[in-house]
Amino acid sequence: MVHAGIVGGTGYTGVELLRLLARHPQVSLKAITSRKEAGLPVAELFPSLRGHVDLAFSDPAQAGLESCDVVFFATPNGIAMEQARALVAAGVRVIDLAADFRIRDVPTWERWYRMPHACPELVAEAVYGLPEVNREAIRAARVVANPGCYPTAVQLGFLPLVEAGLVDPDQLIADAKSGVSGAGRKAEVGSLFSEAADNFKAYGVPGHRHLPEIAQGLARAAGRPVGLTFVPHLTPMIRGIHATLYGRVARRDVDLQALFETRYANEPFVDVLPAGSHPETRSVRASNLCRIAVHRPQDGDTVVVLSVIDNLVKGAAGQAVHNLNLMFGMPETLGLEGVPVLP
Amino acid sequence: MVHAGIVGGTGYTGVELLRLLARHPQVSLKAITSRKEAGLPVAELFPSLRGHVDLAFSDPAQAGLESCDVVFFATPNGIAMEQARALVAAGVRVIDLAADFRIRDVPTWERWYRMPHACPELVAEAVYGLPEVNREAIRAARVVANPGCYPTAVQLGFLPLVEAGLVDPDQLIADAKSGVSGAGRKAEVGSLFSEAADNFKAYGVPGHRHLPEIAQGLARAAGRPVGLTFVPHLTPMIRGIHATLYGRVARRDVDLQALFETRYANEPFVDVLPAGSHPETRSVRASNLCRIAVHRPQDGDTVVVLSVIDNLVKGAAGQAVHNLNLMFGMPETLGLEGVPVLP
Amino acid sequence: MVHAGIVGGTGYTGVELLRLLARHPQVSLKAITSRKEAGLPVAELFPSLRGHVDLAFSDPAQAGLESCDVVFFATPNGIAMEQARALVAAGVRVIDLAADFRIRDVPTWERWYRMPHACPELVAEAVYGLPEVNREAIRAARVVANPGCYPTAVQLGFLPLVEAGLVDPDQLIADAKSGVSGAGRKAEVGSLFSEAADNFKAYGVPGHRHLPEIAQGLARAAGRPVGLTFVPHLTPMIRGIHATLYGRVARRDVDLQALFETRYANEPFVDVLPAGSHPETRSVRASNLCRIAVHRPQDGDTVVVLSVIDNLVKGAAGQAVHNLNLMFGMPETLGLEGVPVLP
Amino acid sequence: MVHAGIVGGTGYTGVELLRLLARHPQVSLKAITSRKEAGLPVAELFPSLRGHVDLAFSDPAQAGLESCDVVFFATPNGIAMEQARALVAAGVRVIDLAADFRIRDVPTWERWYRMPHACPELVAEAVYGLPEVNREAIRAARVVANPGCYPTAVQLGFLPLVEAGLVDPDQLIADAKSGVSGAGRKAEVGSLFSEAADNFKAYGVPGHRHLPEIAQGLARAAGRPVGLTFVPHLTPMIRGIHATLYGRVARRDVDLQALFETRYANEPFVDVLPAGSHPETRSVRASNLCRIAVHRPQDGDTVVVLSVIDNLVKGAAGQAVHNLNLMFGMPETLGLEGVPVLP
Repeated sequence: MVHAGIVGGTGYTGVELLRLLARHPQVSLKAITSRKEAGLPVAELFPSLRGHVDLAFSDPAQAGLESCDVVFFATPNGIAMEQARALVAAGVRVIDLAADFRIRDVPTWERWYRMPHACPELVAEAVYGLPEVNREAIRAARVVANPGCYPTAVQLGFLPLVEAGLVDPDQLIADAKSGVSGAGRKAEVGSLFSEAADNFKAYGVPGHRHLPEIAQGLARAAGRPVGLTFVPHLTPMIRGIHATLYGRVARRDVDLQALFETRYANEPFVDVLPAGSHPETRSVRASNLCRIAVHRPQDGDTVVVLSVIDNLVKGAAGQAVHNLNLMFGMPETLGLEGVPVLP
Repeated sequence: MVHAGIVGGTGYTGVELLRLLARHPQVSLKAITSRKEAGLPVAELFPSLRGHVDLAFSDPAQAGLESCDVVFFATPNGIAMEQARALVAAGVRVIDLAADFRIRDVPTWERWYRMPHACPELVAEAVYGLPEVNREAIRAARVVANPGCYPTAVQLGFLPLVEAGLVDPDQLIADAKSGVSGAGRKAEVGSLFSEAADNFKAYGVPGHRHLPEIAQGLARAAGRPVGLTFVPHLTPMIRGIHATLYGRVARRDVDLQALFETRYANEPFVDVLPAGSHPETRSVRASNLCRIAVHRPQDGDTVVVLSVIDNLVKGAAGQAVHNLNLMFGMPETLGLEGVPVLP
Repeated sequence: MVHAGIVGGTGYTGVELLRLLARHPQVSLKAITSRKEAGLPVAELFPSLRGHVDLAFSDPAQAGLESCDVVFFATPNGIAMEQARALVAAGVRVIDLAADFRIRDVPTWERWYRMPHACPELVAEAVYGLPEVNREAIRAARVVANPGCYPTAVQLGFLPLVEAGLVDPDQLIADAKSGVSGAGRKAEVGSLFSEAADNFKAYGVPGHRHLPEIAQGLARAAGRPVGLTFVPHLTPMIRGIHATLYGRVARRDVDLQALFETRYANEPFVDVLPAGSHPETRSVRASNLCRIAVHRPQDGDTVVVLSVIDNLVKGAAGQAVHNLNLMFGMPETLGLEGVPVLP
Repeated sequence: MVHAGIVGGTGYTGVELLRLLARHPQVSLKAITSRKEAGLPVAELFPSLRGHVDLAFSDPAQAGLESCDVVFFATPNGIAMEQARALVAAGVRVIDLAADFRIRDVPTWERWYRMPHACPELVAEAVYGLPEVNREAIRAARVVANPGCYPTAVQLGFLPLVEAGLVDPDQLIADAKSGVSGAGRKAEVGSLFSEAADNFKAYGVPGHRHLPEIAQGLARAAGRPVGLTFVPHLTPMIRGIHATLYGRVARRDVDLQALFETRYANEPFVDVLPAGSHPETRSVRASNLCRIAVHRPQDGDTVVVLSVIDNLVKGAAGQAVHNLNLMFGMPETLGLEGVPVLP
């Protein structure tokens, strides 16, 4: 039995992590901390957890996190980097669902996240927690940087093409659409129902924080820097990301469908759909799956990849549990077998 | 291992039943029939089931349903009554998710459902599958009439009051709101996104088919006929029913909160919330729970009960699995332990 | 040409008022104030108004409101009562879209709104701006208390029955459902898309501020106090209120359809639908109409009235413009002729 | 006063056309035909029109369309081409909101629309009704082919760049997102609320009928064929199209913002937003506007244009009214001055 703690956990990533861990047969949740909500039973904040989670939020100072086997950070950016050093020193393994350890180049991180980094030495050590790329490194990691939601959907869609050198790495376009839960549970006007419902918009076109993270992952796969245009959009649904990816392919003699199927043949959480498919976000709702389809319209020079995930599961809490399973030598799918909820 | 078959199954009740049975540790799904979709892999119609359900729809004639232990009917009204007799004769137990066996008075059924009943003798034998009322009878039943969605939410909310004789049985009002999945997966203009989204309406005020079903259940609890006004509404969400119930209470010295808590103390799927609560439909999304709160506003003569369920789970497929668990002597919650999906 | 000013106006009531006034042929908008947004062009905050509203928000102190003919308060509760006295003294007529002047009994107001009233003498003078009840008084009013959204829908639905003495005034039930814009444009967790979408809940069952306002209006119509149970609900749509009203009728010989049609025969903004109808909120979207249907299910003792409005128009800004038209002797429908937007 | 008739009109394009024409000061609606709904008052089918449209649907044979000045076809594809010849011969001008006259190359049309064309000679004569391109020709046209919704949003976004030769015409990408009303008011499973809500998907990636229409328009602007990848998506909102457009720009010394502002300086229905903006679909809801923003992220080689319209207005009925205004020498904005409805 793995003893786990959660720092933060009053947001959507937190409640989703609790939903998954509550049914995980090999994880025992020891503590969940919130300075603001200390003392409040978790199930009062999230009535969906009544009968499943008996813990109350505890003050970070009294939570005893250092006696856990693993601690998840479901916090805003900038928290994990302050606390990870002490936990790691105490032998606790850390999975950060925020962005603190995702970017290997610290100055780049500091520029995009607009704060000095408090723990550069763990950045160097941290493993980027995309199991489809770093499975073995994750098993041994002391610190796992759980990927962002957009980066997960975009990288999984582009990787087979980039790894095989089949697309021009200077002309990658990722047009991504996210449900509103991606903005978190913060009280902000832009996330209000009456602002976001029956509406569609792009945002962050001049530059979004997930751009360097995606570019880093694709550059690693390409073995050289990439030129990426990334345009995120907000779509009026709760959960889900749909990435529509465009690349220029020079060769016409490659079976792209086979390429994708082969690349992900042994991946439990990546499902390459039959040729001609259009994956729907709801087909992965509440599950850890990424479903992908690849098209070459009118048999032309542009390849179009469609990649969908649930941003709170494969894009956050589910991938974190997958990483936990890897880190503690458990079957990869443990606690993640739930069937997508449709409709 | 219980061998189960499904007749129908191309609708929302069907896909939800498949979602639940796919993870049920003691049920093996043998066949799912659809005359129209025979030969089509289930996972092509419902991509959410890819990797979880390998069956294809089969023609009813070749499905071998008579060799199953139990057959679910997830069909339109009027199908189960045609086929149940032969199955029961073959020793197969039947759970009908449609309305064919819900109303004990056959002429009443025929008036509301506008067709002659094909199997009155099984109506007499069938057990109304509301476990909170008929648990023991369900265990032994050969035919279970799975309750309707509105009737489940409304009866569970009214039962403690009616059984205790605390409300005037002639003045019951049930104002109920349903998500659009309650209308099924039929192609009808009224259920289109552009008709139902950003809109709210009542329907069926002159008379809805669930009225006699609710009235029958409450009359049984009251020991006399009841006067019930039932107004269903369509609300722009996918899943969920919220029933707001009004009754006249004469006595002021009764602790209604305690009444409800006591009535449902041993029920695994009814959760009485703390006094002052307002249950949300999403707090039971994708789960088999009914959450209830009871109020007496301004300490007056009117009691207000708020009762929420997921119409596709506790209001259909989940309750059917609960009934199966009872019928085959398994733990009641088996396969129904999923945590509600929020947000 | 009527010179108008708006205090507040950064919320949904404000933007809707601007939408209507921008096309009103006899109103010239002179100033709109916001301490927080002073200097910001209105069309930057609300891009929908680009090309239609050229004003910038101005600081209240420099806005010159005292030279307007009329000033609208589209502010939180408690602001208008501070500023109305000086404006009225300056000869400016006031239309308050908040609650400050709605309740005639000041101690009742203070109890429900939890603050001392700053201007009781204008409460005594203010006219409750429901034109269907107070048309003549509104024409002459110096201060109009624009009704709340729920109170508008509920009163218009109950009035014909209560005025005619046809329902038991001690057993009135109003089950009302509101779109989320009714909660305003404040950044609050409960109004987030991911909280309110695909969800339905009641709130304020123990007591909502619109209860005394509705009760006051119905008592006035009944000539005696009434017993009212009022349960508001939040439904996942942007605009719209649907009130489902229940009353006990003793006499069966009354033509309720004719009663309603006669009562509202000359009302430009109340539309009594044909017998058997179920009004949809979208049928009044973006218009000042209230559509009503009356039912007596199963020919029983309970009358059911269905009443729908757009909460931002007939429930707020549109009714305010209607009141302005009355106060300044213009045709009642001026600037309010827009056709509802469907779908 | 222009006498107008409508053929079809039971769909969303029809009800929107009625909404606009009902308030148009210079149009008198003479007839609206529907074989299926003949005799039914329009306001019974669309209660939003009660009090605004008094007509009933009439049988096409008795409608007297040949005595109208103009006839709109709000019909499925393939109807207008059967009836236009006789109307034109009778001196009636025709505005087809369907696709029959949009593609100048008849074999191309026949291949994409899978039927023989019944009236090729009027295709040759018909004017493509995009006023921003064909204003003068529209004034004199006997037959106007009203553009498709996607083609309107995409062309208006690309035109300044393509006309100026600033983007590589072989590498154009249009990633477009549409509300569900774009699929019409047909009863189809894919358009059901429970299928389309809380979901996002691409469709038609191998080829969509609007592809040749867009390519034709852009080729005309470029003076040569173009290479276009067009990926439409379905997003869970009722109205609105958001097109995200990508092009390769060689020159860095061009002020793209000025280019767009100059191109559309005199266009009443195209609004170029300030640099750095992200237009929202709701900012044009229920209005005839197209709002556009242009970006060059990270000052790179890729230009990103964001273009939003209301698919039922600028993408259909509103553009048709704009065309009518041009054809009959009226002010272009007559009847189209409504302010967008937000929220």
